[in-house]
Amino acid sequence: MNKIYAVIALSVASAAFSQKLLDKVEPAFWWKGMKNPELQILVYGKNIANNEIELSDGIQIKDIQKVENPNYIFLTINTNEINVSKFNINIKKGKKNIGSYVYELKQRQPNSANRESFSSKDVMYLIMPDRFANGDEKNDSSPNLIEKVNRNLPNGRHGGDLRGIINNLDYIQNLGATAIWLTPVNEDNEKVYSYHGYAQTDLYKIDERYGTNEEYKELSQKMNKRNMKLVMDYVTNHWGISHWMMKDLPTKDWIHSFSDGENGFKRSNYKTTTQFDTNASEIDKKLALDGWFDTTMPDINQKNPLVLKYLTQNAIWWIEYAELGGFRVDTYPYNDKEAMAKWAKAITDEYPKFNIVGETWQGTAGHISGWQKNSKTGEAANYNSNLPSVMDFMLYGEMPKALKEKEGWDTGMNRIYNSLSSDFLYPDINNVMIFFENHDTERWNEIFNGDLNAYKMGLTLISTLRGIPQIYYGSEIGMRGDKNKGGDADIRRDFPGGWKSDKVNAFNLSNQTPEQKEFYQFTQKLLNWRKGKEVIHTGKTKNFAPQNNVFVYFRYDEKESVMVVLNNNEKEEKLDLKHFEESLKGFTKGKDIISDKEFSLENSFMIPAKTSMVIELK
Amino acid sequence: MNKIYAVIALSVASAAFSQKLLDKVEPAFWWKGMKNPELQILVYGKNIANNEIELSDGIQIKDIQKVENPNYIFLTINTNEINVSKFNINIKKGKKNIGSYVYELKQRQPNSANRESFSSKDVMYLIMPDRFANGDEKNDSSPNLIEKVNRNLPNGRHGGDLRGIINNLDYIQNLGATAIWLTPVNEDNEKVYSYHGYAQTDLYKIDERYGTNEEYKELSQKMNKRNMKLVMDYVTNHWGISHWMMKDLPTKDWIHSFSDGENGFKRSNYKTTTQFDTNASEIDKKLALDGWFDTTMPDINQKNPLVLKYLTQNAIWWIEYAELGGFRVDTYPYNDKEAMAKWAKAITDEYPKFNIVGETWQGTAGHISGWQKNSKTGEAANYNSNLPSVMDFMLYGEMPKALKEKEGWDTGMNRIYNSLSSDFLYPDINNVMIFFENHDTERWNEIFNGDLNAYKMGLTLISTLRGIPQIYYGSEIGMRGDKNKGGDADIRRDFPGGWKSDKVNAFNLSNQTPEQKEFYQFTQKLLNWRKGKEVIHTGKTKNFAPQNNVFVYFRYDEKESVMVVLNNNEKEEKLDLKHFEESLKGFTKGKDIISDKEFSLENSFMIPAKTSMVIELK
Repeated sequence: MNKIYAVIALSVASAAFSQKLLDKVEPAFWWKGMKNPELQILVYGKNIANNEIELSDGIQIKDIQKVENPNYIFLTINTNEINVSKFNINIKKGKKNIGSYVYELKQRQPNSANRESFSSKDVMYLIMPDRFANGDEKNDSSPNLIEKVNRNLPNGRHGGDLRGIINNLDYIQNLGATAIWLTPVNEDNEKVYSYHGYAQTDLYKIDERYGTNEEYKELSQKMNKRNMKLVMDYVTNHWGISHWMMKDLPTKDWIHSFSDGENGFKRSNYKTTTQFDTNASEIDKKLALDGWFDTTMPDINQKNPLVLKYLTQNAIWWIEYAELGGFRVDTYPYNDKEAMAKWAKAITDEYPKFNIVGETWQGTAGHISGWQKNSKTGEAANYNSNLPSVMDFMLYGEMPKALKEKEGWDTGMNRIYNSLSSDFLYPDINNVMIFFENHDTERWNEIFNGDLNAYKMGLTLISTLRGIPQIYYGSEIGMRGDKNKGGDADIRRDFPGGWKSDKVNAFNLSNQTPEQKEFYQFTQKLLNWRKGKEVIHTGKTKNFAPQNNVFVYFRYDEKESVMVVLNNNEKEEKLDLKHFEESLKGFTKGKDIISDKEFSLENSFMIPAKTSMVIELK
Repeated sequence: MNKIYAVIALSVASAAFSQKLLDKVEPAFWWKGMKNPELQILVYGKNIANNEIELSDGIQIKDIQKVENPNYIFLTINTNEINVSKFNINIKKGKKNIGSYVYELKQRQPNSANRESFSSKDVMYLIMPDRFANGDEKNDSSPNLIEKVNRNLPNGRHGGDLRGIINNLDYIQNLGATAIWLTPVNEDNEKVYSYHGYAQTDLYKIDERYGTNEEYKELSQKMNKRNMKLVMDYVTNHWGISHWMMKDLPTKDWIHSFSDGENGFKRSNYKTTTQFDTNASEIDKKLALDGWFDTTMPDINQKNPLVLKYLTQNAIWWIEYAELGGFRVDTYPYNDKEAMAKWAKAITDEYPKFNIVGETWQGTAGHISGWQKNSKTGEAANYNSNLPSVMDFMLYGEMPKALKEKEGWDTGMNRIYNSLSSDFLYPDINNVMIFFENHDTERWNEIFNGDLNAYKMGLTLISTLRGIPQIYYGSEIGMRGDKNKGGDADIRRDFPGGWKSDKVNAFNLSNQTPEQKEFYQFTQKLLNWRKGKEVIHTGKTKNFAPQNNVFVYFRYDEKESVMVVLNNNEKEEKLDLKHFEESLKGFTKGKDIISDKEFSLENSFMIPAKTSMVIELK
């Protein structure tokens, strides 16, 4: 490396910039030994495209792309051809160096490419970080960021942070969760309503009010040591309107803007079924995909190859840097689907076991399954997403209705059974996320008015059916929230005990109210039981059509069988076991892991009203 | 041919039996020149299997199958190898001929193999023959059949017949229907409740109370002359318990019987989703497929190759004999699906253009589309049905809900739009039957309390959307019927004017009440308009997501464009045409074929409350 520039570089500390001419270099560093050796570096600075670019150490630039905005250049290099760990990017005016950046190619962690990712072995715990636990009060506000902490505002920033999550890993692990999905923690520097993080203003930087990049990595590493996985909420569809690039777009088509909209803005029509619907009008398709999700969220144009490369490298950067265990991708069907297929392929080419679950919020299995890699339904729409995992929003929609109804032709438990009857449409049904709520929905405990039995039944379903269960912070202690009345803020209340001033600290089990304890203990018992149960993770399923609003299914493999019984009636029911002979053959006794009771499997048994049983067969 | 037996044969007239030893020969005759030259002949008679069988004219028997019941033998011959038009089947005891049957191989109609069949060019008129028109009072009852006419019994036989239909072909044709689906007209000799015909007791014989085989053929031929198609309601899933074979089963496994059922009977659980659901329990699959549809309907075992051959030949026999224009197949997903795939293939191999629509009564496009030939959804379940057409029960279910609702996220017209968004799952969306009612459902005019506007909107939808519209007799004059209150009988009321004693004769247009006239004239106008509209039959579709509960779609091809507008609101709405620019480009005027009004397509127009418009663009 050229000595002079090394000295300059060292003198500018963390930002690594030698002069103001260079405002941004992204990615700020990279790694040697990636499967795809090509790296595209965005260099941003005032009129930078009017200068010459040269790399030190005789390193070749494969490609320089200049765009309509002269403040950007995009360099492509081949990392395989570089034998130094650091080199300089030099900006030259004629023969004169007018700026320089020390670029580092780091060593990868051993086995990084082969990293494990979340799967049906895991239980995913979803956290809104601002609302979980305030572990570091010093970062509640930042001079660099506009919105300051104010816990009195329902839609304000409350101070929860990464330290709060790190501090409570014992709590989460004891509960039985093995993966954590955080809603976005990258910088979201909107004036208001920034706590949700979906209007990101810097894709390479953790929001200072959550902590630092280093703390994010610390969280992930501490989780990995516990054999837990950190899942990043990745947003490809939109960035925040205050993102630094939005003020100085590289290209006009970096985002979608509408000539007949107000400042380019038009709201999405949210009709994502247009993605597969060959009869959809162009205007509906355009509104669905290119319309903005909200006024503060410019819609990103993934079709632009520079954008797609930026999103791809940023995603890979976070996996490699923070040692991630998966992605959840926001508003999946709102993106350009061909670009997203390339994005998912690039990531899974680099990390073959890496799991990515798309937020496929659509109503039917016909559509949802179309988003899963290698699906026949996708094929029917001439599409292959390369996306490993999708979310079962059909089951999500049916579950609360089912549990509130009496049995009818297609009501009550038949809703769940009917929903599951479409499983054949999914090429990999175990890699489907299942849930009864998330940060965008009414809370389950609100729908059921805090009814513990309903919670137990819902949790039993998502914990024992095929797929990856996802639970939402706080429901395990009975938290409620009414989106219809209180809006999003109400379903994202602060976890009690996450703040020093909180009167009840539900993180401390001995401090929980009796009601919280009941919810918690059930959750803990069921999820911890699930941890070791291969038969639930990857076993087969046998569903028996509901009878009298009682639904029975079996999970089984070569080693064991589990019978799950859900009585959705307000009275106890007798279960005649002869009907289940094919699955009970060879077994004489069962142990309900919920009640810990063991009983004979002759003839019949009684199931109390509104109760679920998870019976290990012996 | 052996002269002696020819004489004997001629002497026994129509039955063609020489002695009582031979009770039945099925098929009673066949044709030369079929693509599949193999013919399997069932010969039935007391202990017939204990005798020798020989064919005259040196004709070879390719195979003789004897079964556990000695009263049956199944002969297989190759019709290509037979050079006579008639030959004898001789039953021999040693060298002595003890019985004989003259078997005829007829000449086929020219172009029979290439016969046209119903398609999206057609409108299907569904008739329950007992309830439509009594054209021949002499056949109201028959000494050979148990249940006698009694028009006072809602579930009794009312006397409608084939002659009644023949007499009213002008009425049906003027209405604009081009195909007629009759619910089964084969003999159904149950004691009671025989009028629906789904418990057939002879698969080769028209029920005498409807007429004769010859009259059935006459109806078909008269329709063919009008360029109309007769569609037979074929029932593979079950026969009547009084079918002659049920009293003396060829093999035990000819039907499904349950050792733990009462007299072998167990009711189906009607869970046909088990067909594609890889996780369904064996008992549910067995109950769904092998359980009886009703107590009088033994469930036929299509897996038995003799049964399958019987069903296949019977189907082909009716096509060839009665010059049919299609099949509707009852309770399609209740049959063995692999056997049905063979059945459909055998028929369409023989008649490549022949259309067969299955009664695929399931809730989601994911399942329904799986029943259509070459579907990806079928492929997902490792299945290819070979069935050309299916029924869109998803759209059927959504339509009445949609028209009763205000617009919401997924309510009102969004239901219809969302349902159509799954069209990509169907490999041949034009060959899907669409309808808002049939003989098993609540009548549309009952659901909407006789509201003419709702009828107009419903009819507009099924007449202008992709697929084959199916309407149900009587709704075109506003007929109502409440299944919930009056049971099936109430949705199958007698058509007014079908009986001499009827006070109103709605077949005679000048005799219709003012209300009947309004329904009729709208139907007539729309369906007759549709007749010539290739753009509706096979044009493309462009759907615009509903806005304010107004749904707009276009049907278009290279020659023309039609804009369909449905205002589902209780007040008039203004339609801003800019939104539909992509489909209106190049057109300046529109003519609503319903109101006959022509108007400019600049800017906007008003749509009255609860109104549909079908606008030809100019």
